[in-house]
Amino acid sequence: MTPAHEFSSDLIVKAANIVRGLSIDAVQAANSGHPGLPLGAADFATVLWTHFLRHNPKNPQWQNRDRFVLSGGHGSMLLYALLHLTGYDVSLADLQAFRQWGSRTPGHPEYGHTPGVETTTGPLGQGLANAVGMAMAEAMLAARFNEADFPVVDHYTYVVATDGDLQEGVTHEACALAGHQQLGKLVVLYDDNHITIDGATDLSFSEKVLQRFVAYGWHTQQVDGHDPQAVYEAIVAARENTSQPSIISCKTIIGKGSPHKAGTAGVHGAPLGEEELRLTKEALGLPPDEAFYVPANIAEFFGEAVTRGAHWQAEWDALFSAYEQAHPEKATTYLNLDKVPAQALDLQTFTAGEQVATRSASGAILNQLAPALPALVGGSADLTPSNNTLPQGATAFMPDNRQGRYIHYGIREHGMAAIMNGLALHGGVIPYGGTFFVFTDYMRPAMRMAALMGLRVIYVLTHDSIGLGEDGPTHQPVEHLSSLRAMPNMLVFRPADANEAIVGWQQALQRSEGPTCLVLTRQKLPVLNREVLAPYQEAAKGGYVLVEDDDYEVILIATGSEVSLALAARDMLNDRGYRVRVVSMPSTELFDAQPQDYRHSVLPPDKTARVAVEAGATWGWQKYVGLKGQIIGLDRFGASAPYQTLYEELGITAEAVARAAEALLA
Amino acid sequence: MTPAHEFSSDLIVKAANIVRGLSIDAVQAANSGHPGLPLGAADFATVLWTHFLRHNPKNPQWQNRDRFVLSGGHGSMLLYALLHLTGYDVSLADLQAFRQWGSRTPGHPEYGHTPGVETTTGPLGQGLANAVGMAMAEAMLAARFNEADFPVVDHYTYVVATDGDLQEGVTHEACALAGHQQLGKLVVLYDDNHITIDGATDLSFSEKVLQRFVAYGWHTQQVDGHDPQAVYEAIVAARENTSQPSIISCKTIIGKGSPHKAGTAGVHGAPLGEEELRLTKEALGLPPDEAFYVPANIAEFFGEAVTRGAHWQAEWDALFSAYEQAHPEKATTYLNLDKVPAQALDLQTFTAGEQVATRSASGAILNQLAPALPALVGGSADLTPSNNTLPQGATAFMPDNRQGRYIHYGIREHGMAAIMNGLALHGGVIPYGGTFFVFTDYMRPAMRMAALMGLRVIYVLTHDSIGLGEDGPTHQPVEHLSSLRAMPNMLVFRPADANEAIVGWQQALQRSEGPTCLVLTRQKLPVLNREVLAPYQEAAKGGYVLVEDDDYEVILIATGSEVSLALAARDMLNDRGYRVRVVSMPSTELFDAQPQDYRHSVLPPDKTARVAVEAGATWGWQKYVGLKGQIIGLDRFGASAPYQTLYEELGITAEAVARAAEALLA
Repeated sequence: MTPAHEFSSDLIVKAANIVRGLSIDAVQAANSGHPGLPLGAADFATVLWTHFLRHNPKNPQWQNRDRFVLSGGHGSMLLYALLHLTGYDVSLADLQAFRQWGSRTPGHPEYGHTPGVETTTGPLGQGLANAVGMAMAEAMLAARFNEADFPVVDHYTYVVATDGDLQEGVTHEACALAGHQQLGKLVVLYDDNHITIDGATDLSFSEKVLQRFVAYGWHTQQVDGHDPQAVYEAIVAARENTSQPSIISCKTIIGKGSPHKAGTAGVHGAPLGEEELRLTKEALGLPPDEAFYVPANIAEFFGEAVTRGAHWQAEWDALFSAYEQAHPEKATTYLNLDKVPAQALDLQTFTAGEQVATRSASGAILNQLAPALPALVGGSADLTPSNNTLPQGATAFMPDNRQGRYIHYGIREHGMAAIMNGLALHGGVIPYGGTFFVFTDYMRPAMRMAALMGLRVIYVLTHDSIGLGEDGPTHQPVEHLSSLRAMPNMLVFRPADANEAIVGWQQALQRSEGPTCLVLTRQKLPVLNREVLAPYQEAAKGGYVLVEDDDYEVILIATGSEVSLALAARDMLNDRGYRVRVVSMPSTELFDAQPQDYRHSVLPPDKTARVAVEAGATWGWQKYVGLKGQIIGLDRFGASAPYQTLYEELGITAEAVARAAEALLA
Repeated sequence: MTPAHEFSSDLIVKAANIVRGLSIDAVQAANSGHPGLPLGAADFATVLWTHFLRHNPKNPQWQNRDRFVLSGGHGSMLLYALLHLTGYDVSLADLQAFRQWGSRTPGHPEYGHTPGVETTTGPLGQGLANAVGMAMAEAMLAARFNEADFPVVDHYTYVVATDGDLQEGVTHEACALAGHQQLGKLVVLYDDNHITIDGATDLSFSEKVLQRFVAYGWHTQQVDGHDPQAVYEAIVAARENTSQPSIISCKTIIGKGSPHKAGTAGVHGAPLGEEELRLTKEALGLPPDEAFYVPANIAEFFGEAVTRGAHWQAEWDALFSAYEQAHPEKATTYLNLDKVPAQALDLQTFTAGEQVATRSASGAILNQLAPALPALVGGSADLTPSNNTLPQGATAFMPDNRQGRYIHYGIREHGMAAIMNGLALHGGVIPYGGTFFVFTDYMRPAMRMAALMGLRVIYVLTHDSIGLGEDGPTHQPVEHLSSLRAMPNMLVFRPADANEAIVGWQQALQRSEGPTCLVLTRQKLPVLNREVLAPYQEAAKGGYVLVEDDDYEVILIATGSEVSLALAARDMLNDRGYRVRVVSMPSTELFDAQPQDYRHSVLPPDKTARVAVEAGATWGWQKYVGLKGQIIGLDRFGASAPYQTLYEELGITAEAVARAAEALLA
């Protein structure tokens, strides 16, 4: 269903000018915000939204909608204006409350907060990389679920990206992979305006962007971003090329319409000011004394999106109904992709006494999960054999194998994490991805976005400490546990043994409201004997009493590989006549979320003789041991040597734990 | 001075095979390591080291040496073998102790640990980006210090980079900037072997790398990396092009020489095994039963580096002596670049009662520091006007203005941080660079390298909390203070007012052993009245008693903008009849480094009624308030609204602090 109107550049420009007016009025009202991008990009964005974007404003959750990502999130008013005009539940009052507490129109677009916002953007590069993930999800689900005559998954992913997005390394990673993967239904409109905050891009940015994208295997075009007809034709060509992702360089003038500020860095991130606002409206042919002006004909023009959306949705609903008849099993699977049934989490336990690295346990667990959870899509940043992330029988997602459920992300941790966000945002996919724990540093901006958006993304983080051994301090995490625990809504889970790793996976999959770090050893660990220790299922509480002596005098708290050290220290202390409780604390976040009664039962306030042991920074452990407790940890970088030597030399030993306990009891 | 020998491909290959033998023997002895890169890259690396690299093995600190960076640090044995053979203080015994505790040959090359290692590498992409910084430093210092007939700064920077380096986003950022900056004396040898850990690069990496570098403005060539003559000619051409950085794609076979493993992922990161080791030596024409074999003629060939190095150094010493005569002032400045004289740190104080954002204070401080410290080189990741990082009168470092001391890094935080490491490693430059505090997430891998290497790098991190306001949660740091405090050897300093900001800069500049984060407000803060409060210089101790009532009952601890809140809370508490001590804690690291006596004088163990307030994650503050204390912080993401509203709505107020104190005293 195409628009009722013939294509009219004149009408597009008039409509775009209304988007401009709304944007600059909102920024002025807030006395804060970024008019430059909406003014510059309004023309080509209007072409996209009125002639191409297949969406249903009255049902932003329609699964087969085209995805639209405003990667330069600072231009949020462009998006809010378009959402408002095309009939989303974003009112004029919402626009007027731009950037105010509790409004639907925060400074940068926020997923889950404003209907029609597909991802949270603002930190540059993230949105474009998310879009690569969305396009991957579409290609994968289409291959797996579509049948002849039933293209139930069939949509485009559109992006508006800025100079800043393209300078950021994460988009290099994601776009190189998008080219490799030949994601033909990804279309990027590059707002090529040659201005950044510091000034003209010639201060720092002189690369030939399109040539770079040719090198990546993309389809490239360049147009005048203020010429609707040219933009229209370019998008048609981009859509028609379904074997390559497309980037269209839309040459624009930042702040277009502002007589004194257009084309300057000054229009990027500050309100125009009352006088320039007025002059801009005059230049755009808008009534200078009217704020938030929307004439009826433009309201109607944009408002057609509602009719079209209803039509598209009805078409698709009918298609899907027929699909359910013809392919009931596939349809059921498709509809239940995002669900994690309890039986899928019923996993084989590991046998006490065996020596199993928790990364190996994770691999074994994945072999069971992958067949049971069709939404699960794995990958690794080129550490597949080390991360144990490839389930038996899984094949690689590739241009000639779109059904593959394993993504070779390459040595692109940041790109991986941002793409995983896009996979999760698309829906129908539960992504997990592996790398060495230390390289969470590379992924951190995207991990934060997952936490902020509340996405079910699972990080398989192996080689979790000096236990890595010979690779040395560049590869040995030290501060990473502590620094990720500090991040809101990030669940960190470091299992003590293979069976606690089961609980880690269960928690991660059941947690639909945010991401999880599974922090796993390289080295082998004993599978703990649960006949004498508490059941491993207790790990779901984050911290639990693993074993204790009657009338214990001291509490040893440990995570991961150091739980075995704590148990050995208990033996030593018992031999020396002390009575000990040992607490396994795989997740401080889960423990903190327990009722106070429970927490006090594990760490009674009157039991202040406490020793924590973890092969990482001590920062934060005072929360559990208090000012009088002791922490056996590592407040320096590691070193290169066999791991047993490192534990000895760096003083993370059962003896050190026992001695610390004795000192407290002395 | 050229080699005594005519160029002989045959000799090069024989020499390279000795490098190969040492590498695989060391990996086998350690039973750990990466033979693939040394075997693959030995030929072209040997060409570089025997025919181009101008260095002095007996004085690795010679300032005008060529820099060599092995960006793929996992191939460390390649570098160690070359260092050993060319006469550095890296013995055969050191090679034999590869990857062992205390050895000079750790798993990845470590700066400051092994003579001749110019930077720590391993986390991919960092080394190449460091090299961009080294080449920038060379260009800048050459422009500032060279005079006609006195090219005292005149060297190349060479890099061996891998597929992984080029996939990482940080090299996109750094290399795009290197092209923009036309760093003609940067030469990258790309070990183009089409293998990564997951397998062939066609799993994830199909871009046309050289075309991408053409887009960046680089000079590109492609050669057979096993053809010494071709490599030689390509390096000659690369050196001759001094207006563009050069990349030479050296097509190689990973693990070359290993009959069964060459060309496979299996040779990347695991020892060959005894049998394959033997077969490889046979294939390479090495005695299969001899480990660490170096025949006399090859020892002599590589050993010529010592003679050449002594000659080059002597030439340069003579040149510099003449330069000292002809240009004594410049020579003195040059020789003292890395020193920070006390008088340079004698800074104007700010007047009590004024309202000054600490980012503005930092800008004013920089206006005084820049003229006094010629080594100081600033920059920003495209947030110059927000970070206040451009000193008055400073000009941009550009191809046509190499004397400029300000670098427009573009929207490339990670590239900036890694380039700053390179600037610092080169010497003669004390780099600082600005971005929003939240975007330390993007820089974190490079910040960790600065901490690990102990580099004097200064991060100017503005917009340090929800005080940022309307830009919302994507731009509001929450967990960043805590997460950076967890990092070893990272100094975090968050001044309470403009005068504490002076101390922050003093500490950062005097700290030659590691990096510093200066964490600064967007919003204005009152300059505290030091007539009634403790002198601001006390901030150098990291934490100090700002003010107190006799017989105080409760301690309020605060950092940065929240110190003013704590002072207001004290007033409230005084009004309610409570007696209060207020501690300003701009740096927990500096405080922790004080003697226990001092720490106990500020936070007496018997005074357990303590409230900490900081507009960030509470994680870690228990270290100072204990289990019985209270922390007013933020364990959620922020929101978009004017900042005063955010402080109110999120409960970070003087009233909340006062109430928490009252609750403790109740």
